[in-house]
Amino acid sequence: MRHPLDVVVRIGGAGLCRTDLHIIEGQWSPITNIELPYTLGHENAGWVTEVGSAVSNVAVGDTVILHPTPTCGQCYACRSGDDMFCSASSFPGVNTDGGMAEMVLTSARACVRVDPTTRPADIAALADAGLTAYAAVKKATPLLHPGSYCVVIGAGGLGHIGIQCLTAMAATHVIVLDRNPQALELAKGLGARTCLEVVDDGTAVLKEVLEITDGRGADVVIDFVGEGGTEQYAPAMVRNGGTYLVVGYGAELRIPYIDLISRGLNVVGNLVGTYNELVELMALQRDGLVTLHTRSYPLDAVGDAIADLENGRIRGRGVLIPD
Amino acid sequence: MRHPLDVVVRIGGAGLCRTDLHIIEGQWSPITNIELPYTLGHENAGWVTEVGSAVSNVAVGDTVILHPTPTCGQCYACRSGDDMFCSASSFPGVNTDGGMAEMVLTSARACVRVDPTTRPADIAALADAGLTAYAAVKKATPLLHPGSYCVVIGAGGLGHIGIQCLTAMAATHVIVLDRNPQALELAKGLGARTCLEVVDDGTAVLKEVLEITDGRGADVVIDFVGEGGTEQYAPAMVRNGGTYLVVGYGAELRIPYIDLISRGLNVVGNLVGTYNELVELMALQRDGLVTLHTRSYPLDAVGDAIADLENGRIRGRGVLIPD
Amino acid sequence: MRHPLDVVVRIGGAGLCRTDLHIIEGQWSPITNIELPYTLGHENAGWVTEVGSAVSNVAVGDTVILHPTPTCGQCYACRSGDDMFCSASSFPGVNTDGGMAEMVLTSARACVRVDPTTRPADIAALADAGLTAYAAVKKATPLLHPGSYCVVIGAGGLGHIGIQCLTAMAATHVIVLDRNPQALELAKGLGARTCLEVVDDGTAVLKEVLEITDGRGADVVIDFVGEGGTEQYAPAMVRNGGTYLVVGYGAELRIPYIDLISRGLNVVGNLVGTYNELVELMALQRDGLVTLHTRSYPLDAVGDAIADLENGRIRGRGVLIPD
Amino acid sequence: MRHPLDVVVRIGGAGLCRTDLHIIEGQWSPITNIELPYTLGHENAGWVTEVGSAVSNVAVGDTVILHPTPTCGQCYACRSGDDMFCSASSFPGVNTDGGMAEMVLTSARACVRVDPTTRPADIAALADAGLTAYAAVKKATPLLHPGSYCVVIGAGGLGHIGIQCLTAMAATHVIVLDRNPQALELAKGLGARTCLEVVDDGTAVLKEVLEITDGRGADVVIDFVGEGGTEQYAPAMVRNGGTYLVVGYGAELRIPYIDLISRGLNVVGNLVGTYNELVELMALQRDGLVTLHTRSYPLDAVGDAIADLENGRIRGRGVLIPD
Repeated sequence: MRHPLDVVVRIGGAGLCRTDLHIIEGQWSPITNIELPYTLGHENAGWVTEVGSAVSNVAVGDTVILHPTPTCGQCYACRSGDDMFCSASSFPGVNTDGGMAEMVLTSARACVRVDPTTRPADIAALADAGLTAYAAVKKATPLLHPGSYCVVIGAGGLGHIGIQCLTAMAATHVIVLDRNPQALELAKGLGARTCLEVVDDGTAVLKEVLEITDGRGADVVIDFVGEGGTEQYAPAMVRNGGTYLVVGYGAELRIPYIDLISRGLNVVGNLVGTYNELVELMALQRDGLVTLHTRSYPLDAVGDAIADLENGRIRGRGVLIPD
Repeated sequence: MRHPLDVVVRIGGAGLCRTDLHIIEGQWSPITNIELPYTLGHENAGWVTEVGSAVSNVAVGDTVILHPTPTCGQCYACRSGDDMFCSASSFPGVNTDGGMAEMVLTSARACVRVDPTTRPADIAALADAGLTAYAAVKKATPLLHPGSYCVVIGAGGLGHIGIQCLTAMAATHVIVLDRNPQALELAKGLGARTCLEVVDDGTAVLKEVLEITDGRGADVVIDFVGEGGTEQYAPAMVRNGGTYLVVGYGAELRIPYIDLISRGLNVVGNLVGTYNELVELMALQRDGLVTLHTRSYPLDAVGDAIADLENGRIRGRGVLIPD
Repeated sequence: MRHPLDVVVRIGGAGLCRTDLHIIEGQWSPITNIELPYTLGHENAGWVTEVGSAVSNVAVGDTVILHPTPTCGQCYACRSGDDMFCSASSFPGVNTDGGMAEMVLTSARACVRVDPTTRPADIAALADAGLTAYAAVKKATPLLHPGSYCVVIGAGGLGHIGIQCLTAMAATHVIVLDRNPQALELAKGLGARTCLEVVDDGTAVLKEVLEITDGRGADVVIDFVGEGGTEQYAPAMVRNGGTYLVVGYGAELRIPYIDLISRGLNVVGNLVGTYNELVELMALQRDGLVTLHTRSYPLDAVGDAIADLENGRIRGRGVLIPD
Repeated sequence: MRHPLDVVVRIGGAGLCRTDLHIIEGQWSPITNIELPYTLGHENAGWVTEVGSAVSNVAVGDTVILHPTPTCGQCYACRSGDDMFCSASSFPGVNTDGGMAEMVLTSARACVRVDPTTRPADIAALADAGLTAYAAVKKATPLLHPGSYCVVIGAGGLGHIGIQCLTAMAATHVIVLDRNPQALELAKGLGARTCLEVVDDGTAVLKEVLEITDGRGADVVIDFVGEGGTEQYAPAMVRNGGTYLVVGYGAELRIPYIDLISRGLNVVGNLVGTYNELVELMALQRDGLVTLHTRSYPLDAVGDAIADLENGRIRGRGVLIPD
């Protein structure tokens, strides 16, 4: 162990994320400048197998889920609990070797201990997909009083967790948009009050959302897609003074400044969440309020898993499991 | 009087605003759909000359400054104090007749009573330019702890008030950017710690701001310009997790979603402020913490005033005064 | 009608509240200085029968629930939406004639329109008991992340609504304390995770709460009782840095300053809620997330109702209905 | 070094605090249960002389000021930045050996590096007195809009720093109360708008504050004394819905619940502040916005220093300096 806070974890499950596709496409290369080859996998859970000299929060044998960005613990952001903005964090699976492997090197600061009976493969995808969805919903809830409207775009890997978080933590009218009728079916069962299928360019769902909200638009729109047309209709369905929470990505946002100011819009980019938010999400999971819908693949079938994700053949989240 | 809350005010001063230029250019016509001709003037102060039957907060003879958007008082936004998002407000001078006139019709709900010794022409421009700058600064202050950095783009009509509000209400390092050296001179005297002249496309000031902030960028950027290149360099000088407060307009914002999320950016459109924020701003003015720099024109010299504003010949704010 | 915003409402139901007992006991007389006799009843719902000249939000025939404190709409508190701190409000049933009558005089600013099929007697007690419980819970929810603990003291008229609001708006472990096993039974059905019977002076429940919370205490304690011993054990079961929300009253709070500071305690007094909070509560009621448990009495059986309340014979809330 | 994060600091200055008197009086013994003898001194600054194996934020030779409660860095409170509520912190000088000595043992997590030209004796008292005052003011500022009133009780060791923080970070009318005319003189020079001498039991200043605030009371009262009568008049001068921030201690708070709720009072106990708040305070100090008024004593004259503090003979703060 090079650092007193180092921890080695044997992987029990590693989630497959649309970000993995974006990395393969090259979207992240100007940001990370990483040298190839390296190991993907930024949603990891497993069992602690080795700990550094200063580690006291976990012990060998513990079942853990890993916060995606091990942090320094000393910068202003870390001392405020804003783990995402640590000035010296790494992002295993994105800018260093990740968890689509037998073992992963992480830090005590990333380890959240869970009940020893938990199967890592059942929770791995909560590490990033779950955490990001939870953190976005947590930003939304103070804006979602009873009588308000929250649009959720995308009921896939992140969205289906976000809907469960909304159901658990807010009394708002949740409207879910997706191009896939089966995803909408799942959303309905998780507490969405209105489910709308997106067809063509989204003009129809925009009209429907404005009708449901008496022409005003939604208080909050959480966009788990961020491409394929949402960049057009999503901002248009936010009410004046409302908030557009961006989670998915791929497209470019284009808004005239006069619209930003005359409509009093808030656009918020969401990058994972804090360590404590992962602790909180695991409390929701433990209490049965959030359940991952997953599809398992052996680690060496990663190519099939990627193909299934690309072709929309995975409901919920794909998880890779080492033999 | 048609409505029990109507109030007629004799104008003592009407501010001239870059929004007036934008209205003349036609930027607002798709939003307001107003029929021409109508009277401009959305920054008004004067004396009450007539009141409706249900008015009790002001009386004939009172000196008043007028909140720019008389509101209904009954919708959810009004009952929360969010005057800007009233579902039934008007915006005199923008979507109905305004104050570049002898008299203006307003509502008791828009009247803020001030000390009778106040000259309306000295404060008129606080009604919108001042209020908008104050409200943006008020959103910024919770994000500006000692040791933080706040970039202010534009030290003109709004900016020079915003800088004074920042000096009065926050202990942050204020960095002011402007293309005009005289505006920067004024900013320095109002409490700005660093003043940078913008040349060419802003590449140089972007580099300077990143150097001053140890490569991180500013916690908050308040953009009082919103065109002419700020749409390029302003978002780039916000730190990860920081906030870009948009006040000026004219350009189009273009940001890839991957930047919004990987940098955790917040983009906030600001539309004037609340009635109480105007009350608060008048307290700052009364206490000498905010002073308007104005240039007066007789009402019938409005053409000269507009030409001077268009050609950057007004420091601070132009004010039109009826004979 | 004396004022253009006056509204006359025919009472369909008036809730009976522990505050009515406290008024009869004389606790409120030093605060209100009201001259006797006057009419009690501060939880009112019914049908509009007459409106003043400036009323536009309700019309004759509308079914309405009345915010308990008609406000002026013009002071700083009103313009911020802080109806409770209006500098010129009245409190019908407390400091002027209330709704234990055929008709009550109120203001348009107090009227919340509800679905015409709603029976006023079914919702009347939401006007104050419900609103107060809802507003206290709304203060609590930002403090109640998943994994946190919220103690609710008292599952009676207010408490049973508060528990429903917590269930709808937060994912926290709700611990309910009451001296009455039937009240705890009701609480269990409404979503409380742990129900503890208070016996003797509360020493036993204090110990149990500390055990459940790993010795730390609860993040929030909402005290709907405020007398009979809660003044001793309630503050003691708040965690360091936690919040004690006071709703019920009768006793005196006594805490050494050294405890306040060494434990970082927050003590918050709650007085009803805002107009918009009543709108929000009615959205919860409309969506079936909050249901009042009531017991009806004819208006002229008010004496029996008071005796039943005093002797703990009402589960939920008593409501008086004019013939 | 027993722990990889241990740091040994040579003391350059140790502040003397009223809490030291309260410890000597025995007020803290039921809370700390510490065995005598031990070394006082919880406001420390000096130079790093030794560091553990995992320390990277400071190096031998650095000038540092020490956060008063070295924390674990791993509990939920630490991961939220709430250092004061760490479940495993120590409080050197209160519950373990402190800095009235040549050297003190602390943790890397408590060390804030300052400019090497800073004299530790000039800043030591900012570690606790300064931090506590700053943190209380930081809680107050969101409540202190222009036009508001903030009462500061006590312009001594903590108060004179609190007043400077208020001047730097808020545009409010600061009213300072003290029994000592010289302290009020100092307060006036630091930006207090109104200074009132407390005589007898405080009845006169209560009346004056109510007059200044149009009978409403102050939006915030910060009580740096917490004994000797403030427990009577301080809560009475808070406006309805306002906040009473408690910092000083010694007395017992007694408030009938009916007053808490009918007046919507908030009572907030303040225990030091976070690590980042100490960083922020040092930025204020570096920028000249906060200056400590101190009186130096050699370490072996600690008895004289204590006697001077007890008898009100120290303006600002006493600091002990090892030879």
